[in-house]
Amino acid sequence: MKALVLVAHGSRRQASNDEVRALSKAIAIEMADEYPIIEAGFLELAEPLIPDAIDCCVKQGATGVCVMPYFLSAGRHVREDVPAEVNKARQMHNNIPIEVLAHIGGAPMMIDLIRDTVMDSREK
Amino acid sequence: MKALVLVAHGSRRQASNDEVRALSKAIAIEMADEYPIIEAGFLELAEPLIPDAIDCCVKQGATGVCVMPYFLSAGRHVREDVPAEVNKARQMHNNIPIEVLAHIGGAPMMIDLIRDTVMDSREK
Repeated sequence: MKALVLVAHGSRRQASNDEVRALSKAIAIEMADEYPIIEAGFLELAEPLIPDAIDCCVKQGATGVCVMPYFLSAGRHVREDVPAEVNKARQMHNNIPIEVLAHIGGAPMMIDLIRDTVMDSREK
Repeated sequence: MKALVLVAHGSRRQASNDEVRALSKAIAIEMADEYPIIEAGFLELAEPLIPDAIDCCVKQGATGVCVMPYFLSAGRHVREDVPAEVNKARQMHNNIPIEVLAHIGGAPMMIDLIRDTVMDSREK
């Protein structure tokens, strides 16, 4: 049973964290077939932190976890901090494969999202 | 002649700023018909700053400018700081309509982007 963790930076502003939680719930509906378990996780400033989010997936029966860094650019957070937090989870669950995917900002389809969103805004 | 400015936060890490500049160039190719002028702009830490990016569009002949905030969550930057910078540009060019679009993280299609990106990563 595969799990997906959407990892955001986390904010002092609760509404921003709630935005990420709502997004992970929307994705959970869209991707229920591929990922029966989907959680939001945060690098800092909000809960659950990354190792706790992964732990939560394992407790629900995950046999593999994919981590999607919800960051626009491949800065220090994406290159160093998120992988370091994921490594903490790997040490707790060394029998479960935990994979870190590419950050969302690097997705080739981001260009299409921007184009579609701009065109959609113009029509309103 | 319409112009689009892709506005990012800006980073001390030049590679992050270059990532945004490369993205705006890729969008410029995709959207050349709708937006003959497309520039990247930054809230802080990188150049051109937002008013300068808009000014650059006007100097190229823009008769209207759309600003797309390339931010994942609607925090203070999206709600206050970007509009304040755009207002500076409006004061310089009060004959040109300058519109601020919704931030990219709020796009309903973000769910599809995450789904497609996750599925695409799995296939590799």
